[in-house]
Amino acid sequence: MTPGAGAAASGAGRGLARLLPVLDWGRRYDRQTLSSDLVAALVVTIMLVPQSLAYALLAGLPAEVGLYASIAPLLAYALFGTSRTLAVGPVAVIALMTATAAGSVATPGTAAYREAALALALLSGLMLLAMGVLRLGFLANLLSHPVISGFITASGILIATSQLRQLLGLGGGGDTLPAMLGSLLPQLGATHLPTLAVGLVSLLFLAWARRGLKPLLARLGVAPRTAELAARGGPALAVIGAIAAVVAFGLDARGVKVVGAIPAGLPPLGLPPFDPALWTQLLVPAFLIALVGFVESVSVAQTLAARRRQRIVPDQELIGLGAANVAAAATGGMPVTGGFARSVVNFDAGAETPAAGAFTAVGILLAALFLAPLLAKLPVATLAATIIVAVLSIIDTKAPLRLWRYSRRDFAAMAVTIGTTLLAGVEPGIVAGVAASLVLHLAQSARPHAAIVGRVPGTEHFRNVQRHEVITFPHLLTVRVDESLSYLNARWLEEFLLEEVAARPALRHVVLMCSAVNAIDASALESLEAINHRLADAGIRLHLSEVKGPVMDRLTRSHFLEELTGRVFLSQHEAFSVLAADPDGMAAPPPDPWAPRGLI
Amino acid sequence: MTPGAGAAASGAGRGLARLLPVLDWGRRYDRQTLSSDLVAALVVTIMLVPQSLAYALLAGLPAEVGLYASIAPLLAYALFGTSRTLAVGPVAVIALMTATAAGSVATPGTAAYREAALALALLSGLMLLAMGVLRLGFLANLLSHPVISGFITASGILIATSQLRQLLGLGGGGDTLPAMLGSLLPQLGATHLPTLAVGLVSLLFLAWARRGLKPLLARLGVAPRTAELAARGGPALAVIGAIAAVVAFGLDARGVKVVGAIPAGLPPLGLPPFDPALWTQLLVPAFLIALVGFVESVSVAQTLAARRRQRIVPDQELIGLGAANVAAAATGGMPVTGGFARSVVNFDAGAETPAAGAFTAVGILLAALFLAPLLAKLPVATLAATIIVAVLSIIDTKAPLRLWRYSRRDFAAMAVTIGTTLLAGVEPGIVAGVAASLVLHLAQSARPHAAIVGRVPGTEHFRNVQRHEVITFPHLLTVRVDESLSYLNARWLEEFLLEEVAARPALRHVVLMCSAVNAIDASALESLEAINHRLADAGIRLHLSEVKGPVMDRLTRSHFLEELTGRVFLSQHEAFSVLAADPDGMAAPPPDPWAPRGLI
Repeated sequence: MTPGAGAAASGAGRGLARLLPVLDWGRRYDRQTLSSDLVAALVVTIMLVPQSLAYALLAGLPAEVGLYASIAPLLAYALFGTSRTLAVGPVAVIALMTATAAGSVATPGTAAYREAALALALLSGLMLLAMGVLRLGFLANLLSHPVISGFITASGILIATSQLRQLLGLGGGGDTLPAMLGSLLPQLGATHLPTLAVGLVSLLFLAWARRGLKPLLARLGVAPRTAELAARGGPALAVIGAIAAVVAFGLDARGVKVVGAIPAGLPPLGLPPFDPALWTQLLVPAFLIALVGFVESVSVAQTLAARRRQRIVPDQELIGLGAANVAAAATGGMPVTGGFARSVVNFDAGAETPAAGAFTAVGILLAALFLAPLLAKLPVATLAATIIVAVLSIIDTKAPLRLWRYSRRDFAAMAVTIGTTLLAGVEPGIVAGVAASLVLHLAQSARPHAAIVGRVPGTEHFRNVQRHEVITFPHLLTVRVDESLSYLNARWLEEFLLEEVAARPALRHVVLMCSAVNAIDASALESLEAINHRLADAGIRLHLSEVKGPVMDRLTRSHFLEELTGRVFLSQHEAFSVLAADPDGMAAPPPDPWAPRGLI
Repeated sequence: MTPGAGAAASGAGRGLARLLPVLDWGRRYDRQTLSSDLVAALVVTIMLVPQSLAYALLAGLPAEVGLYASIAPLLAYALFGTSRTLAVGPVAVIALMTATAAGSVATPGTAAYREAALALALLSGLMLLAMGVLRLGFLANLLSHPVISGFITASGILIATSQLRQLLGLGGGGDTLPAMLGSLLPQLGATHLPTLAVGLVSLLFLAWARRGLKPLLARLGVAPRTAELAARGGPALAVIGAIAAVVAFGLDARGVKVVGAIPAGLPPLGLPPFDPALWTQLLVPAFLIALVGFVESVSVAQTLAARRRQRIVPDQELIGLGAANVAAAATGGMPVTGGFARSVVNFDAGAETPAAGAFTAVGILLAALFLAPLLAKLPVATLAATIIVAVLSIIDTKAPLRLWRYSRRDFAAMAVTIGTTLLAGVEPGIVAGVAASLVLHLAQSARPHAAIVGRVPGTEHFRNVQRHEVITFPHLLTVRVDESLSYLNARWLEEFLLEEVAARPALRHVVLMCSAVNAIDASALESLEAINHRLADAGIRLHLSEVKGPVMDRLTRSHFLEELTGRVFLSQHEAFSVLAADPDGMAAPPPDPWAPRGLI
């Protein structure tokens, strides 16, 4: 067991240590932990430099913004976050969402566009902080798994498509698949062949590096774990090779687009100016960025924490991510979140505490200070290739079929999300997915599964008459509703019961079997009262069976049980036994609920 | 049994008779039914004339519009509606909503305002028709009972307050309670005393007529049923008395506001002009008017139908009400729906078929042709008094306390609706109520009731350890979740289970008792898989018990059951018996789900 794991037991501590997890793990920090964290930081830094540049370009921002967004946010998360291994920074999907949102209020390349990206980071950071303080993390529940999975897939397709034009050396743009293809396809004849050559070579190398580099290193005698980590350096190797090729063959003079001069130096300090009009326009996109970033980040953090039996605290994660985004906004960055690939690398490289993230920040800072001038000749097509390879790996091609088999409803939510994201863009995609999940969920509550049941011969069990050979009586109808009774299905219940009753002239008793009814809200109670009255008018008694404790507690606080023409039976077996022997509806006639009013 | 009741059995017929219920009851129409319907129509006509005028004025429209809206819509409903006794026309709450919506796009008294009211009737009529054809009646479920009840109460308060100024002979306006009081209170010193005298006398007479007229008539020897019906003529008597007073004392010359010249004649024919800009602005209010009107109307119709063992068909009611509103729009009317008071009067007066509604339409038409000139001297304060008495009777003052006792959640939804309606107006009120119901409903799903259970000694029953003395073991934890597992509570389940597990070092088996789980969606399945993996990491097996048939069917279509480290037990008793005897977690160690990936 590592020292980090030992500290984890009290990781979700109390008081100040809860708000600042660093106080907990910092006390136990020793030399062995330090060396583990330093190694992990080095590996992640090498991986993060090309990724940061690439995702900044994907967001339509200058390359150095990606580096800036990988310094202060990492420090902030190291202070406030609860995951020991999560690596935050610019990620592909959030970069795409940033590009869409900033592009809706400004033109890429302008100061206004940069300011919009900063405002997005600040707003989503403040929203995450507010959600953390107000314990609103459950809002993330609104993004169901099929919606998130579909959104990641569709975003991956959009991102890969958008990077095609960099690979081909072409211009154009678009926020949706039709727009992207519509602007790209007519230009295909103008493909810049030297750029395409650089792009394809990069792409092939990166694709090979993902699978072939590790076995090759292993064959060369490198230790398995070192080979595993070195293989993650594929993008760094591609960047170095591409820069070398540009310099050697003067490719930039032949029209191959390069990143260009990156200003060396510290990130600029200062919050974006307060601009109410701009902020209002960006509220919804900032909220969506916050939500998607949080859901992705927490799921990565939970997966990694579970492998070492550590725990993360979702509400505190909101604080950590919020602080990271505010830090990004204050240091010339862009919206950030926890990335999957880099966190896994951090974990695999042996990171034990968030200090590894802080050391990574130092590494990127050094890169920004000393490496930046060397990156000027880096071809954009190579960065596009790293993006394409990265996003294609996050597309879960098996998910749709798996969902289709498990649940058509969930499949529909995913299909709506994917379709809307591709055809209308990322924001409509997320919103449509959330709406589809909600509507499908509510539709299930509104038309629940209900069964007419009878007794299985020789047992005390009651089963669906349509699925089993069971005992029933013409004067006795038992209905089991497999759903809590709420305002969403109250009218359905009235119609369902009255329709079944209308078809049975000999009926004298209706039993509502409540074994699956976890709650009855006021609207459903109102409907039960109406059903009771209407059945009484028809000379039929209404009974309940197997009512759960909390539901019964509540019913006794209403007048329903006094008005009920029948009884509440503890078990369906008791109800069936008693009522089967009473084909005439008991001695006394049911009370006439309308009589006292004398209206007729 | 009346002939109408006999026909009701096949009232929900097939084919054309389903679309045109008149084909069904029309065939059985005889002389006895005719005379019943004619009597009812006469009584309702007498009641409807003052009401129609009053609600038109409440909506900010000329008085004759109320009469027009009580002719063609009644005929349309008689053809398409399924209730035999529902009386449609202008009602108070819908008139208030019309005033708010039309007032947001035009000034009362202008042609544009009248056109807006017609457009509202047309749009809400078309929406109702579309909902009927597309079977979208379940949308009305969104208006939970507490929301509708709260909305009616708050609207009643708004309406009564708005009519105070007519009673006092003052000007002013406002869509919210603060606005109304803010414009009314500073003017109180300018109260027009003759108007107040007319208003107060009308008010006192009407209040007395509701309770004292019937006993008085009974003492005078009038048959009880006749007395009952004659007492409903209170408003008509008040109108006649007030006109007489105005003429006798020349009150209009003394500044008492009167209705003024009402043009005698047929309603104007023709649809409002197509105006896309106006219609777009009115889409939301028209939808809310359609929804509120439908819910109110259906609940009145169902209540009355049940008393005679008739049935109404909600989807067909959409068609009937939609046709009525389109008819209102085409004949110079205003939005209409089924009114409670007038429908009860129609029912009590013996109406047997929708023909009574058609006869009422003829009665109102005659009133519009011949009575209109006589109404010119009718004081507005008397109409205000009839409105105040009518709306105060629809306020259910006991509902809030009843709800508070039954369910704080439902009480909260009602409180939000009442508060928002009073402070922000009718449209925000409805929207806030629907949103509050939804959020509270979803919040319940997101944080469901869950209990740790143990075996009741000597039985096969399992109960909450916090409520009962039960048997448990340190190595065995059974959790019962009283809610379906969905994306809304998937993360909660993970956190809840892992927290309980963390507190029990001796734990070897976790049983999830699924007796109340009616469904497991894809997100919840994903969470169960994650829980299974994490428990396996901790050397704990996960088992399920009492899984329902449909849930099990679905689970077998996923890989979950193959990955599950424990078993699926048919009954909790079996699970408890088997696992209690296995304190070491069975012979074989649980599989390590991470091992195959070799990531560490």
